[in-house]
Formats: sequence, structure tokens, C-alpha cells
Amino acid sequence: MACENGLVHTYNPHLVETTTDHLYHFGISRSSDLPKEFGDVKFVCTGGSASRLEMFAKLFAEEAKIPLSENLSKSDRFCMYKTGPVLWVNHGMGTPSLSIMLVEVIKLLHYAGASQVSFIRIGTSGGIGVAPGTVVVSSGAINGMLQETHVQYIMGQRVDRPAKLDAGLKDELIATGKGLQIPVDTGVTLCADDFYEGQMRLDGAFCDYTSEDKFKFLRKLHDEHNVRNFEMESSCFAAMTRRAGAKAAIVCVALLNRFDGDQVKIEKEQYHEFEMRPFRLVSAFVKNKL
Amino acid sequence: MACENGLVHTYNPHLVETTTDHLYHFGISRSSDLPKEFGDVKFVCTGGSASRLEMFAKLFAEEAKIPLSENLSKSDRFCMYKTGPVLWVNHGMGTPSLSIMLVEVIKLLHYAGASQVSFIRIGTSGGIGVAPGTVVVSSGAINGMLQETHVQYIMGQRVDRPAKLDAGLKDELIATGKGLQIPVDTGVTLCADDFYEGQMRLDGAFCDYTSEDKFKFLRKLHDEHNVRNFEMESSCFAAMTRRAGAKAAIVCVALLNRFDGDQVKIEKEQYHEFEMRPFRLVSAFVKNKL
Repeated sequence: MACENGLVHTYNPHLVETTTDHLYHFGISRSSDLPKEFGDVKFVCTGGSASRLEMFAKLFAEEAKIPLSENLSKSDRFCMYKTGPVLWVNHGMGTPSLSIMLVEVIKLLHYAGASQVSFIRIGTSGGIGVAPGTVVVSSGAINGMLQETHVQYIMGQRVDRPAKLDAGLKDELIATGKGLQIPVDTGVTLCADDFYEGQMRLDGAFCDYTSEDKFKFLRKLHDEHNVRNFEMESSCFAAMTRRAGAKAAIVCVALLNRFDGDQVKIEKEQYHEFEMRPFRLVSAFVKNKL
Repeated sequence: MACENGLVHTYNPHLVETTTDHLYHFGISRSSDLPKEFGDVKFVCTGGSASRLEMFAKLFAEEAKIPLSENLSKSDRFCMYKTGPVLWVNHGMGTPSLSIMLVEVIKLLHYAGASQVSFIRIGTSGGIGVAPGTVVVSSGAINGMLQETHVQYIMGQRVDRPAKLDAGLKDELIATGKGLQIPVDTGVTLCADDFYEGQMRLDGAFCDYTSEDKFKFLRKLHDEHNVRNFEMESSCFAAMTRRAGAKAAIVCVALLNRFDGDQVKIEKEQYHEFEMRPFRLVSAFVKNKL
């Protein structure tokens, strides 16, 4: 299916045959109301935690003086709020959970006829050679094999999807952050499939590598692959939004510098201030576009 | 570290050096209170949805006449309830989210000195050649490459962990289900990394395969690999509990038979009755062991 007029597109010949469709993990069914309800969406802002996304939606509604919808998700798997042309949805932790959210939101926006949509992930991450509190706007995403792809397993076969983010959107977000005097950096994001061994932490239940291995790997990521942070969704996020013909960016605050430790040891107030930085950046950017 | 006296064990020489540890995704810190609070745990019952696990914990407390704890998780990432020797924890969707929960619960139980612990996953799934409502007690778990392993990426390298479930626990659970006249079947569970393409659904946003491909693959899974259901956690669940020296079983109701369709189309009441079947089975089994 071609990406005409910037419409959010799907690529599934079977969907054409169906007039009914149930977005199971949101409890939303396809209906003639979708274009009216969601046709104006221009931004999908997402992140892992449901309560954080709810807080972001409320704050944005207040700041932008736009009415906040009720929770539009009828399932407890994800939350979904709408503030005018901005959708706020959480995605849980890891690429499998994210992929479910993305497939269903892409179908929703496709049915609604939404166009020129940007997806922005607002999250937390472990920094690699960046100071705690730095907001990393990803220049790219690599998986655990250090490849710029999202790996799927379909019909018992491995399929690699290119994981590319939008360079223009990244540059605009960096400029916005600098204008707000938020500490901003950019670099590649490594998408790990777990929080412990996949990120070379020494404090998991299991650890077969040494502290020396860890620092050698972090150094390699930083120096040879230009990696600036670890999180658990980037490669899938980049690959799947690209398949839908949508722009995507990832804006994550580093809660720690992994060269200095593995545990997140900041005080609650500091944590909250850090957590708000990517939101402040993205909300300023989005408000400016409305 | 040896698995002496059936203790929940970790394998991480670095943990020995630490006296403080913060289980970040539960907001629980290591303290001298853990043995008193969690040392008696014998069962960890888990499943994806937080609200479902909360409901299960409440029901179990009522039925077994055991006091229910408050939510012991101080983070919104997971919930955790305790009813005497039974811990109820949710794990979100997919293996990355599950792995975070398991690492932190394994460390918690290790610090608490808990022993002879069984982990039981109570979930929903897509049946393959089984009638909707059938409870599938997994005989094994395979990943998307149809291998009996959980794949991790550590230091840029692929590491395969054997994914084996406990045969004795499986047999006891099947016998319990039969005694309760719950429709029970057993077979291998395929752990997919997504809900749509990884499970050969025709109703996702993207679909490069045909309906014929789908049925051929389902037939192959059923006939050649003895697969009876799809879900998104089994291989990691089997592999990681095994590393901790704990017994594990997976008990999932099939919400549909994938030979008959891709969408979950049952009415709410029927859904609830189906969703309760694995809980009824597991709670009867656990109550009998107390």
C-alpha cells in the first residue's frame, strides 16, 4: 500500500476484506466513528509506564489548554488519552509489549484516516558516558547484536526489519531542548531485551561476565558504535513506525551513567525532575506545532 | 552457587559483595526484614495483567481464608500481593518485561532464604487445535525459531538458555484439572515475540504471508512439534526459573482455536469464565499443598 498524502498506512491485503476489526488490547472496535474521533491525530506520544503517561496527558492538557479525554482504552493492558491532535499511550516494557501497542494504534490511525503523524517515545534510560539527567535524542537504534535492525520471527524464520529514525525530527527536538536549556545529547540507543544481562549489569540474579567485561563492552559501545544509552524498545519502535510511513523520534533521559554504576540511586525529587525533562522538551516541541 | 536445600538461588558472584540492593521495578530494598516477610514463600503465581493478578490474589485470600497483604510493590511497573506462602505478581506482556520481574523476584526470594518454591504462570493464550476454553498445561516451551531455548543477547553475542518445565508439577496440575472437570490438554507452548506476525495472524497492521502460509504453519506446529498454544512468555519463564533452581509450570486457557480465526470474539461473560479456569485449577492445587 502506498504512503499517499502522508496517511498512516498498513501493509496487509487481508485487512481490506474486513469491515469489522477489534483492537483487542485497547478494547476498541472499528466503526464509522473512528475518523471523527481520531482523524485529527498528528502526534502519538508514548512511554512505558501507564501512570506516567496519564500524568503527561493531564499536564499537557493543562499547559496547552486543550480538553483531556477520558481513558479511551477499554482494556487494562494499555492506557490511551487524547488532547486534541495528540494521543498519549503507554507501551509497557520491552519490544513485544510495544509491538502490540504499535500494531493496534497504527491500525486505529489507519482506519481513522490520520495523516502526517509523528510518533515520539518519551522514556527513561541508562546513559553510557553521559551525565545523569541528560536527555538523549536518539540518532539511531541498534539491537543486542549491535545491528541497526529489529528482529522478528515469522513462520519459524528470522526476519530483519531496518530500524531507522527520522533525522529531521531528531534535529528539531535537539534544537528545542537547547532552547529550553535542558542538557541534551544525541547518539545511538541500544535496545536490550532485558534490564540486567542484556545491559551488562553486575547486579542481576545471574551474571556470567566480569566487571572488566562490562566496562570493555560499554567502552566499545561508546567509542565504536556511538551508543549513548540503553533502553528496551528503540529498534522495534524505529522499525515499526517506519513500516507505517510515520516519522519517529526517541527522547529518553539518562537516569545514571553506567560507567559509574548499575543501580538507579537518585532521590525521589531528583528522579521526578529528571523524568520530566523529556516531557518538557517534547511538550514544548508539540505545542509549537499546534 | 549450589542449589542446597532447595533454596532459590542466584548465580552472580558480584551480589556477594553487596549488602544493599534495590529491586528497582518493585521499589523494594534489601533489608534484614526480607526473611521474615518473604522467607515462607512456596508459590509464585504470575500472569500478564496487573488487575487480573490483583483479582486472583483477593479471591485466593477469601477462598483459603488467608489474610491478603496490601500491594507490596512500591513501583507502578508491577503489582505484588502476598497471601501466606503464595506471592501474586504480574509480569506484563512479553519476555523482556517478564525477565525483569523474574530477576527481581528471584533476588527477593534469595535474600529472604525462601526454599522449595514453585513458579506458576496463569495466563491466556491462542489455542492450536484445541477448543476455546481448554486449559493447556505446557509440556515444554519453544521460541519463534522452534527451538527449546530462551535467547539472550549478552555482550553483543547470542546466548541460548535451555527452556525446560517441571514434568512432575505439570502432571499434578493436569490431574487437578481433571478432578475439577475443567477441560485440560497438554502440549508444547510457542513463545512468540509479538501478538500478530509472530503468531501468523492475518489481522495485524502488516502481513507478508498468505492465509495458506498461516494454516500450513499452524498444521506443522501442531503435527510435527506438538504445539497446542501460542503465548508470549513461556521460553523465558522456563529458562529463568530453571536457572534459579525452582520448579515451574505454565497453565494458560485458550481463548480461541487459531484454526478457526485470529480475533478473540467471545462475549464478556464467557471471557471471564474462561479466564477463571486456569485460576480455579491452580488455586485448588495450591490450596491442597498448604
